[in-house]
Amino acid sequence: MTTPLAAKIAKEYGTPALVIDMDRVERNIARVQAICDKAGVKNRPHIKTHKSPYLAKLQIKAGAQGITCQKLGEAEVMAADGIDDILISYNILGEEKMARLAKLMQTTTMTVAADNPVTIAGLPQAARAAGRPLAVVIECDTGRKRAGVETPGEAIALAQQITALPGLTFAGFLMYPTEKGWPEAQTFYDEALAGVRAAGLEPTIVSTGGSPNLPNVGKLKGATEHRPGTYIYNDRMQVVAGVADWDDCALHVYSTVVSRAAPERGILDAGSKTLTSDPGGGLDGFGQILEHPEAKIARFAEEHGFLDLARSNTRPNVGEVVRIVPNHVCVVVNMADEVVMVRGDEIVGVLPVAARGKLR
Amino acid sequence: MTTPLAAKIAKEYGTPALVIDMDRVERNIARVQAICDKAGVKNRPHIKTHKSPYLAKLQIKAGAQGITCQKLGEAEVMAADGIDDILISYNILGEEKMARLAKLMQTTTMTVAADNPVTIAGLPQAARAAGRPLAVVIECDTGRKRAGVETPGEAIALAQQITALPGLTFAGFLMYPTEKGWPEAQTFYDEALAGVRAAGLEPTIVSTGGSPNLPNVGKLKGATEHRPGTYIYNDRMQVVAGVADWDDCALHVYSTVVSRAAPERGILDAGSKTLTSDPGGGLDGFGQILEHPEAKIARFAEEHGFLDLARSNTRPNVGEVVRIVPNHVCVVVNMADEVVMVRGDEIVGVLPVAARGKLR
Repeated sequence: MTTPLAAKIAKEYGTPALVIDMDRVERNIARVQAICDKAGVKNRPHIKTHKSPYLAKLQIKAGAQGITCQKLGEAEVMAADGIDDILISYNILGEEKMARLAKLMQTTTMTVAADNPVTIAGLPQAARAAGRPLAVVIECDTGRKRAGVETPGEAIALAQQITALPGLTFAGFLMYPTEKGWPEAQTFYDEALAGVRAAGLEPTIVSTGGSPNLPNVGKLKGATEHRPGTYIYNDRMQVVAGVADWDDCALHVYSTVVSRAAPERGILDAGSKTLTSDPGGGLDGFGQILEHPEAKIARFAEEHGFLDLARSNTRPNVGEVVRIVPNHVCVVVNMADEVVMVRGDEIVGVLPVAARGKLR
Repeated sequence: MTTPLAAKIAKEYGTPALVIDMDRVERNIARVQAICDKAGVKNRPHIKTHKSPYLAKLQIKAGAQGITCQKLGEAEVMAADGIDDILISYNILGEEKMARLAKLMQTTTMTVAADNPVTIAGLPQAARAAGRPLAVVIECDTGRKRAGVETPGEAIALAQQITALPGLTFAGFLMYPTEKGWPEAQTFYDEALAGVRAAGLEPTIVSTGGSPNLPNVGKLKGATEHRPGTYIYNDRMQVVAGVADWDDCALHVYSTVVSRAAPERGILDAGSKTLTSDPGGGLDGFGQILEHPEAKIARFAEEHGFLDLARSNTRPNVGEVVRIVPNHVCVVVNMADEVVMVRGDEIVGVLPVAARGKLR
């Protein structure tokens, strides 16, 4: 059954529409800030989830230290709106990016991450162009096998390289432990810390990451800050991971059933160009339909969501508007130019996803 | 090894960047127009792939009849740039969309698709508001189990519903046969045609679809037009399907290797927010790296492409810029606000993806 709010959304904006409940957003912001405060760790939220300076400022107003971005283009949007403390948790490479980083450094306290000598060797160009030092944290792999040096020894060597180069300041360590990998992260950190101290260096930033890691915040002795992202909206993955309830999911995709060609199947007007093919770490189907929890979004065409209704006792008719909690909210937000803001059953505005699509 | 053009792209725009070779684009446009001409079928390209009025006009200049869109928002962008014959191959529902459709009908010859009585019952609102008739084609399922009526009998009944409603004109049939399903599509069509003729109706549009179906164009007796989309750029799926060669792939994603934390793995700066998680119908990995064909893009984080180099004899260093042919180009184009245009080794401009992100 189409809820009254869904009918309003469809009438005013059409579907598919991304809708955020600001009451839930504010509650999520407050809850996670309290977790960080209690753990004695600064909160540096990752804006990859919402890509909105407006929401970043709400996070800062609630107590966040600054923000984390993944791309220079995201940082540029945030800095242009007055956010003045930004960590880019990513290897930034190349002349074009160094020029942009230098420009950002004029107005903004910038910290960047690096996990290799090539990245570090390029960074003095930005510091030189900016006429001020650039703070660099060393990204350490603590189990995800993504970016990050694999050993404390490499981290110590990179710290020394940073210190030896003009314009660069060794700022500390960036980690993203797996949910179970915090003891290993501690061992890694302790050894890296001892090494840099032996070289006369002291970290000022020791950063951990991830909303699924919220139960672990503060567990790393020496950590100064945490970088949670997804918590502002939450999603099906967070619910399955046990760090959020359905009521904590602040973003719903409103989608209309546009075809019911056979009894056991149907088509939603949200396909892979809205919900994305993100499997959510192996979840069954591509989102949770709140009105029909047994219906499965089985697969996608670009603008078609394939509904498998075989095991669903309730089956929506053509024209019904349903609410979907996506598997992975961060990639879904990135598909839209704007989200509709509501409070309870009232539409209160439209928010641009200002840093959407900043590939670089 | 970074090619000279890749170095230029990285220096001027940074990576990841979507780059289209206009020589290849024009060659693809000409080739497919010739296929349609030879088959005696009109070409109505689907703009979902490029989302650019500029490229749509190149297709029309080469002989295309008009264009196909999937969303009203795409059609609005195309119509605003002067394209005057648009088929929306999708069930359009709801008051908000009817008002927009009516507005489009003022300037543009619009045809819409429907596969059910609820959609059709809503369409007179648009015709009434526009003050002119709306042409409707009936979407028929011919094996994909997506949208489309399952039987000729249903198609005939919908044709009669269309004819009975004020402001609607029965225009014909929309099909998207599977590559092997053309004999079944013929049987379906022949029966539906006989039925509508018995009711005194005659189709003017009989539309087939799909770039993978290019070898089948003209095989349906009675078809008036074909709707290929992907052919303008092509991608790894088209190559694997045997309808394009690597040299026909006009779009490459240029991406920098930003981390090589261990000998057998690395990280690209193109993650799921650039290349998307589209599995390409079950391909191994998420794109083909032209410089390192044995390297596998094994999985993604949002801004990280995980390179598995275990089976690759050549292994890129940090800083190398590689060219990737994506699994499914249509969804990748939709991630970017613009594409860089080149001819051979020369950069010739930047093209906005003007209808990108039109969710509705």
